[in-house]
Amino acid sequence: MQLITVDDITDARERLAGIAVRTPLLSVPENSRNRLWIKPENLQPVGAFKIRGALNAIGKLPEPVRQRGVVAWSSGNHAQAVAYVAREFGIPATIVVPDSTPRIKIESTRALGGTVVEVPMAERESRAYQLVSELGATPIPPFDHPDVIAGQGTVGLEIAEQLPDVDVVLIPVSGGGLASGIGTAVRARCPRARIYGVEPELAADAAASLRAGELIRWAPEDRARTIADGLRAEPSELTFAHLRSVLDGMLTVTEEEIRAALKLLIERTRTIVEPSGAVAAAACLFHGAELPTGQTVAVASGGNIDSGLLREILD
Amino acid sequence: MQLITVDDITDARERLAGIAVRTPLLSVPENSRNRLWIKPENLQPVGAFKIRGALNAIGKLPEPVRQRGVVAWSSGNHAQAVAYVAREFGIPATIVVPDSTPRIKIESTRALGGTVVEVPMAERESRAYQLVSELGATPIPPFDHPDVIAGQGTVGLEIAEQLPDVDVVLIPVSGGGLASGIGTAVRARCPRARIYGVEPELAADAAASLRAGELIRWAPEDRARTIADGLRAEPSELTFAHLRSVLDGMLTVTEEEIRAALKLLIERTRTIVEPSGAVAAAACLFHGAELPTGQTVAVASGGNIDSGLLREILD
Repeated sequence: MQLITVDDITDARERLAGIAVRTPLLSVPENSRNRLWIKPENLQPVGAFKIRGALNAIGKLPEPVRQRGVVAWSSGNHAQAVAYVAREFGIPATIVVPDSTPRIKIESTRALGGTVVEVPMAERESRAYQLVSELGATPIPPFDHPDVIAGQGTVGLEIAEQLPDVDVVLIPVSGGGLASGIGTAVRARCPRARIYGVEPELAADAAASLRAGELIRWAPEDRARTIADGLRAEPSELTFAHLRSVLDGMLTVTEEEIRAALKLLIERTRTIVEPSGAVAAAACLFHGAELPTGQTVAVASGGNIDSGLLREILD
Repeated sequence: MQLITVDDITDARERLAGIAVRTPLLSVPENSRNRLWIKPENLQPVGAFKIRGALNAIGKLPEPVRQRGVVAWSSGNHAQAVAYVAREFGIPATIVVPDSTPRIKIESTRALGGTVVEVPMAERESRAYQLVSELGATPIPPFDHPDVIAGQGTVGLEIAEQLPDVDVVLIPVSGGGLASGIGTAVRARCPRARIYGVEPELAADAAASLRAGELIRWAPEDRARTIADGLRAEPSELTFAHLRSVLDGMLTVTEEEIRAALKLLIERTRTIVEPSGAVAAAACLFHGAELPTGQTVAVASGGNIDSGLLREILD
């Protein structure tokens, strides 16, 4: 299987300029064993790293193809990112969502100019491909595409520039696009650094797959148990091949550790983080003994948290 | 009176590397007339731009002088910044605070390694100078010093690099150090840009002074009425001379406008802003008709908000 290279990522970077934010590293000095830095991707437009992959994938399309529009299926941060980028390019975006999606997410996708199509959960992907063929539009998958992976990898280029002597990089894993991209960049630019994926214990299918050396499938209802609602997807063949190649290992964190890290991150970074965005920091804070010591970067993947949960965390 | 120059600010910048954050510009796209960008200084260590001035002022001291330590008098963000920077240099910091200071602020200053001395409000400055002379330490004033002003000015250098065609820069004014520094940098690097200070209507002494052409004093109890607790100081002769030289004008905002801007900033930037940090954005959002149109940067000066107020704002 063809893996992306750091050249694909440096190439992606040019497509991000002026729209994606070059997020800083924020020091969270209270951890004693390692020096912990947060890469706050919650500061991106739409509040998540997903803007990077969407910008690269849509930006790379030949102009006549791009003009026919794009289709995504997701109810989360990827959908918002595709709608946002399509608006920047002035092209149509159609987002297929399960009919159980909260109104607020549908409204915010519409506010970005996306056309929302609600379908029963089971028909989501088939309806998306039907729209692709009807509209002549291009599907933009959330992680299973080399251009999306290369876009997410720009996070890793930035880490390598901002902290060249980084020792440990911790990345949340769901579909695996973010960890595949960052891992590829950091492996190339900081070969001494150790790179770990992090999952909730309750959605640890990628950790199980890496141990087994082949993709292990967990039932969606099992993966749905974690509070980290952005980490309920599972790797594809493409991302799994990247994860095997670039990760030094996987760590898993409990729900309690995710909640504690979430509270600490919000207080110390003064940014609003979502549960999925806190798992990498939770690994540093609560599983330091399983990690090498040194300068540690934890990627905070997003900040779209339910307002009720946010108030509960702040109490 | 000798004003600082952009060379003082480029010189200051080298002292900030690795400790102060090069904060990104965050787009807040919902404003129709102007394109609004936020410069989120709430992402700095200690949650405010004050780290920049403290780093420059303490970093510039000759080594034997610095080793004898520093003294600051403040109960707010400047005190935290001086304690933080002193710890980075491994030197003692003594912070003189009024005996009415909330325990939580005293505890957080102590957690940074600062020695806290509580005195009656009226004796604050005299006790600070007594300590300076007893300890042989150096006083680090919150704004009335060229090295502090030059440090704060590094915000302006970053804005000029990040958005070279910026049209309007909006900066909160309290003692005036931040606006003096940023104004000097932006005037030199983006001579076409218009630069405005912003104050709460309830603490608009600097606006009154600029209109009168001389320092107008408001009673402390009047300045204390605004929710923007970081904007209750008044300019010194030094900062007033800078403000007269670099500002195109001043705007004032109401308490209701500050609250509305605060809520919008927290929701849209996904960062935690304090009331003082929202006044510049409030000027853009509610006083656009008094401003030139175009690419507008509003400086969010800090993020140390009372947790009760934050929960109220999020409700």
